[in-house]
Amino acid sequence: MVVSRQRGEVVIRRLIEGWASAVRARKVRDVVAHHTDDVVMFDVPPAVAVRGISAYRETWLPFFRWLREGNGTFDIVNLDITAGDTVAFATALLRCGSKAELARNKRSRLRLTIGLRKVHDRWRIAHEHHSFPAD
Amino acid sequence: MVVSRQRGEVVIRRLIEGWASAVRARKVRDVVAHHTDDVVMFDVPPAVAVRGISAYRETWLPFFRWLREGNGTFDIVNLDITAGDTVAFATALLRCGSKAELARNKRSRLRLTIGLRKVHDRWRIAHEHHSFPAD
Repeated sequence: MVVSRQRGEVVIRRLIEGWASAVRARKVRDVVAHHTDDVVMFDVPPAVAVRGISAYRETWLPFFRWLREGNGTFDIVNLDITAGDTVAFATALLRCGSKAELARNKRSRLRLTIGLRKVHDRWRIAHEHHSFPAD
Repeated sequence: MVVSRQRGEVVIRRLIEGWASAVRARKVRDVVAHHTDDVVMFDVPPAVAVRGISAYRETWLPFFRWLREGNGTFDIVNLDITAGDTVAFATALLRCGSKAELARNKRSRLRLTIGLRKVHDRWRIAHEHHSFPAD
């Protein structure tokens, strides 16, 4: 059981690192490849909550534009995973900002919490919560 | 196993509702009663992350002052729980603001994600992520 949990952490770490890498590569198909259909995201922009995989997918297109135009970064600085048998959560800090923002040290630390559950024996992201500390 | 998970959800719901109730009552002892020593909080104010139960406890005193002086609310509007055997996460929206802010419909929806793990057979809060949608 301990081994299976450690194995879960390894799988989830790879999944989240792959997701962040897909964001940087601006490949929406890979970004949404490991989510549940009913994913709920608390995102940075004004909407209180984004519900469902279609709405989730749509949030990435303006972000990809911003990443490209601002020469932005989306790099995981640290990632901690707590995995059980079928439910897990992860907390991460990311270096996230446009080149100009990072030069001013503005909005640099994105906080991210991810909730996962196992569906048909595969880990899926069911929840994301992104925020910057308040100014 | 299904029964034990449903039971987990019931216990966790009661725990989180009790925690929010302790916040409203401004009883710091009850607010911190069900956390792990190494709790990590991504809070609304500027600190990127608050680490450890002592630092966590300290964040509540200015919030209690704000609640009292602003005649503020901290009410759970909805709460969803995903529980496994030893790990769980919860997502919630809260109506949170001073009386004046709520009258202007400002900062009304606090988003909250909670990560929990079982320690000596009792559910404990190991992580909280609080944020308001960006303006």
